[in-house]
Amino acid sequence: MALNVGVIGVGKIGQDHIRRLTETLPGARVVAVSDADGARAREVASRLDGAKVYAQGEDVILAKEVDAVIVTSWGATHAAYVLASIKAGKPVFCEKPLATKEADCSAIVDAEAAFGRRLVQVGFMRRFDPQYQAMKKAIASGAIGAPLIFQSVHRNASVPAHYTGEMALTDTAVHDIDIARFLLDDEPFAIAVRAPRRNRRAGDVADPLVTLIDMRSGALVVIETSVQIAYGYDIRGEVVGETGAVSLAETSDVIVKREGAYFGCVPGDWPERFDRAFDAEFRAWIAAAAKGGAAGSSAWDGYVATAATLAGVKALSTGAREPIKLRERPALYAL
Amino acid sequence: MALNVGVIGVGKIGQDHIRRLTETLPGARVVAVSDADGARAREVASRLDGAKVYAQGEDVILAKEVDAVIVTSWGATHAAYVLASIKAGKPVFCEKPLATKEADCSAIVDAEAAFGRRLVQVGFMRRFDPQYQAMKKAIASGAIGAPLIFQSVHRNASVPAHYTGEMALTDTAVHDIDIARFLLDDEPFAIAVRAPRRNRRAGDVADPLVTLIDMRSGALVVIETSVQIAYGYDIRGEVVGETGAVSLAETSDVIVKREGAYFGCVPGDWPERFDRAFDAEFRAWIAAAAKGGAAGSSAWDGYVATAATLAGVKALSTGAREPIKLRERPALYAL
Amino acid sequence: MALNVGVIGVGKIGQDHIRRLTETLPGARVVAVSDADGARAREVASRLDGAKVYAQGEDVILAKEVDAVIVTSWGATHAAYVLASIKAGKPVFCEKPLATKEADCSAIVDAEAAFGRRLVQVGFMRRFDPQYQAMKKAIASGAIGAPLIFQSVHRNASVPAHYTGEMALTDTAVHDIDIARFLLDDEPFAIAVRAPRRNRRAGDVADPLVTLIDMRSGALVVIETSVQIAYGYDIRGEVVGETGAVSLAETSDVIVKREGAYFGCVPGDWPERFDRAFDAEFRAWIAAAAKGGAAGSSAWDGYVATAATLAGVKALSTGAREPIKLRERPALYAL
Amino acid sequence: MALNVGVIGVGKIGQDHIRRLTETLPGARVVAVSDADGARAREVASRLDGAKVYAQGEDVILAKEVDAVIVTSWGATHAAYVLASIKAGKPVFCEKPLATKEADCSAIVDAEAAFGRRLVQVGFMRRFDPQYQAMKKAIASGAIGAPLIFQSVHRNASVPAHYTGEMALTDTAVHDIDIARFLLDDEPFAIAVRAPRRNRRAGDVADPLVTLIDMRSGALVVIETSVQIAYGYDIRGEVVGETGAVSLAETSDVIVKREGAYFGCVPGDWPERFDRAFDAEFRAWIAAAAKGGAAGSSAWDGYVATAATLAGVKALSTGAREPIKLRERPALYAL
Repeated sequence: MALNVGVIGVGKIGQDHIRRLTETLPGARVVAVSDADGARAREVASRLDGAKVYAQGEDVILAKEVDAVIVTSWGATHAAYVLASIKAGKPVFCEKPLATKEADCSAIVDAEAAFGRRLVQVGFMRRFDPQYQAMKKAIASGAIGAPLIFQSVHRNASVPAHYTGEMALTDTAVHDIDIARFLLDDEPFAIAVRAPRRNRRAGDVADPLVTLIDMRSGALVVIETSVQIAYGYDIRGEVVGETGAVSLAETSDVIVKREGAYFGCVPGDWPERFDRAFDAEFRAWIAAAAKGGAAGSSAWDGYVATAATLAGVKALSTGAREPIKLRERPALYAL
Repeated sequence: MALNVGVIGVGKIGQDHIRRLTETLPGARVVAVSDADGARAREVASRLDGAKVYAQGEDVILAKEVDAVIVTSWGATHAAYVLASIKAGKPVFCEKPLATKEADCSAIVDAEAAFGRRLVQVGFMRRFDPQYQAMKKAIASGAIGAPLIFQSVHRNASVPAHYTGEMALTDTAVHDIDIARFLLDDEPFAIAVRAPRRNRRAGDVADPLVTLIDMRSGALVVIETSVQIAYGYDIRGEVVGETGAVSLAETSDVIVKREGAYFGCVPGDWPERFDRAFDAEFRAWIAAAAKGGAAGSSAWDGYVATAATLAGVKALSTGAREPIKLRERPALYAL
Repeated sequence: MALNVGVIGVGKIGQDHIRRLTETLPGARVVAVSDADGARAREVASRLDGAKVYAQGEDVILAKEVDAVIVTSWGATHAAYVLASIKAGKPVFCEKPLATKEADCSAIVDAEAAFGRRLVQVGFMRRFDPQYQAMKKAIASGAIGAPLIFQSVHRNASVPAHYTGEMALTDTAVHDIDIARFLLDDEPFAIAVRAPRRNRRAGDVADPLVTLIDMRSGALVVIETSVQIAYGYDIRGEVVGETGAVSLAETSDVIVKREGAYFGCVPGDWPERFDRAFDAEFRAWIAAAAKGGAAGSSAWDGYVATAATLAGVKALSTGAREPIKLRERPALYAL
Repeated sequence: MALNVGVIGVGKIGQDHIRRLTETLPGARVVAVSDADGARAREVASRLDGAKVYAQGEDVILAKEVDAVIVTSWGATHAAYVLASIKAGKPVFCEKPLATKEADCSAIVDAEAAFGRRLVQVGFMRRFDPQYQAMKKAIASGAIGAPLIFQSVHRNASVPAHYTGEMALTDTAVHDIDIARFLLDDEPFAIAVRAPRRNRRAGDVADPLVTLIDMRSGALVVIETSVQIAYGYDIRGEVVGETGAVSLAETSDVIVKREGAYFGCVPGDWPERFDRAFDAEFRAWIAAAAKGGAAGSSAWDGYVATAATLAGVKALSTGAREPIKLRERPALYAL
């Protein structure tokens, strides 16, 4: 029996998730959609076999035919839809951020904890990437000893015109923060941000940034974000341990030799780099949601990511190391 | 509308294909199975939702509920099932070899040509591997000039006890031969096989082998098969052109540093190495079969593979360069 | 005519330099030695063809037969010998540090500037390493745009028992600081040091450290020092620019495949990793000293290295970002 | 005491060896030269400190001041000079080939065996290359089991106008043959040559070639020579064993990322690729010749190389596998 999914927000990312659910993966169908732009909602629905269009996201959540919800609307609207989904007892996949305000994330955590079972999955796809999973496995094997430093590099060829300096933290480094927690099984407690010499391609945006996050264990996370680096979408990472280190391998399919050089390809952008991760993420979500639950990053993970990035935004403006004060973690999210 | 698939032969590989169709990919369901071992057929069917068990493969082909057929029975039985599928006008995916005898392959080619439309897809999954596709794309781009030599390396950690020396050609190098034709857009016309110093791990089997195939363009294909090399399943390849070369990159997800070395993983066996290729192969087959057709390697490709490997078997015993005499190619298979 | 060299301090590193001058490179011979341990001086001299033993380093410097001086004594004694060499108008190669105190370095700079010609070469061999030279060349070519960040990684398998936490800056990161200045053509103006979770193998020593240095251009240098990492001596580096990046390649001679992995070697220690750099360094020194001059890192470079590392030592204890206040640079050291 | 060297033939390669002896390495000086072009001999001598010019190579050999001889004249003249050197009891370094005729090589072997001590070193520099030495060490360690196949790839960006098809064997593959014997500790007994589709850049020259050599142990050597491949001078090699494999690593100093790719450099030509090997080769020769002997490839090795390449030239014209019939090996050359 296929999982009947309702999608709130059918912009670029929403449509990509719909495509994945309907064309790439088995086990789900999209039966309801809504969008702030009603015409867009109708257009998207017309290409789906029998999907209804609803005026409001809340209608999608409450629709009888909807088993589970995907929230890919504008970030500021996420919290309300996720809370409504929990209230309706329906599994919900929410694109990052879980919410743009820490208090809203916390309310979601409270609501889900009160519900007593995970319903929320946050769209940090890196946890499903085969490379990061191999990295976590290598650490867990003891091959490098206890992890002490995580160097994470996040480079975009370019970013859209509406990108702001704060987004290097809230939209870009947020992925590195979540994966750092995943790899190190650790929580952040302080953050500092350094803005080196500015890339002239970045205009007014402070780019690149080097963000340092102190984890509770003492491990240090160093994140480089370079979002206008032209040459490609390049995700690098190395975890340095007491006796060894593990890093992400290059991903080029082939090596070409010509004109005095051998070369491999760097991915052009994130859909190419993380295609397999997105597949695995939704595969896991469909399986979990079909049983009424969730997989991958939890509401707690979404809460910590927002708390850490907002502390980072403050650190960027103060130039100081800012604490990341986390609320108590409900038992539902025990490691 | 899902494609209703009947599977003839539900041994290890058949079950793996069934798993892929029912759990991994959308668009198909398995509605009928048969196996020489009836108990096994019933056991496999019991795990599928509503699949019927038939006594004979022919019954599967003729079953009304079956839209398309997968043949994963014993190699010697392939030809009859494929011919019956063509006769029934049903798309058929046949594991390699298409047939163990050249005449049977030729009869299939004739039957399909007479039918007038491709129905047959042969299971050479490498054509769907992202790495080989990138290699073909690099050649087509002109980056290396005209291709002159293809060095292909096919290493297995070990092979089963029933493996014979001829199987290094018919079961192992057959993949390299098909991918050589795909990469070079060329046909083989002669084959020679060299048996170097024998690997003591291989017992009576002549292993490794170095096979040389002359292509019509003059390009030379050099295939190393090492089927007892212990360290892993390692598929390497390089196409050497007039001005450059292109080779398959290593596939390890991570690089670990410890104890004086950095290292990456070599795949353990083919299901791991070609998992993505199998996914893409069946994704393409489902899409094509749903329209009554086929994708990937054709009956003609299956015919040439069998003709070339049988000439190779002869060359292994004679020690001479043996011609690969190909019949005329029907227009259906025009490049 | 061979350059006649006097060597002050013939411990491990002094003996290694002597070996290089007498056995590996042409153009020099060692004619005089001294050491705080007179017996050791005599023992080393006995293995050299006609080298005299002097009681004091100053005697070596003043000896008529000595054309040029190598100072490889205990760090705290460097300044006096270098000053005496300048006074004697003789070229002097001084192992790092040029001096342990900033004022002593400054006095050397003054003396050499007054002398009016470079006589001093400081032993930062990395500037002669083919890999760093290729990196500098790539930056200079414009291939990566203006450099914004330099990530430098300095890992030792282990350090001697007398190694202290401050030495991670004064003995280890000092090399990264010098090479950063070389690569970026830039001066440091502030330094901060972070001590992550401690490696239990390091006992009381704060290890690893992450040091951040702000350069005048705004470029940021991030140095990881891990001096008890067990797996090898691993020197990594990447300069990140506006449109690209350049990093040091791995140095393994061969790749071995066995037991499920492919692997390359990591150097065991610095004599192995930088053997070619040491050769080139002394080759350049012999040529320059034969003409009465010096090559490579200058007294100014030695001064900045000491100033920066001492600011780093302070930063390690205060936890704050400390300024690196540099004196005015004499015209002799114009870039 | 420096080794006094006489050089016969001071063309491009002779001058390069002289530069290495006089500027790069310690322990030798060039005291005598001769050349078929007397003006060239005088010009070269004028740049050396006190080198005499002799009219004939034989005069160089007999000159009292000459301790050891380097033969870098035209290949066809090598044998006479080497024999004269043996007669004079002087160590002689001879560029490959030792002689262009098998009988001449054999006469040298006889003469040296009669002399009773090695005097002859043949210029196969690869034996001194750190990469091939690491490869031999890996094989000797047992890491890959007994060696079964050696795949050797020898690519030149281009070759001079006077290059002929036979030279792909006598001048190019001859290096691969010598290093194969070195790596495998084995002798060749048959050779076959395949000429694939011709590179249009190569004009009338049969290029590329694939040469197959059967070794006495049964190991198979497969040599690709591509001498007009444009992209660089690329020397690749992999020894395949019973349980593993070892291959030469890439040699690029840095990896640059820009414009959608990461890339490393391929050497431009052999002086760049084998610079360290030449240094080590002459370092070893100077040390050995100073003691009246020789290192590296022996007269026997030179003999086998010529015997094998001449059999290869025959095989290229006959298209058949040709035997490599080796004379008995004198005890002097016992492995």
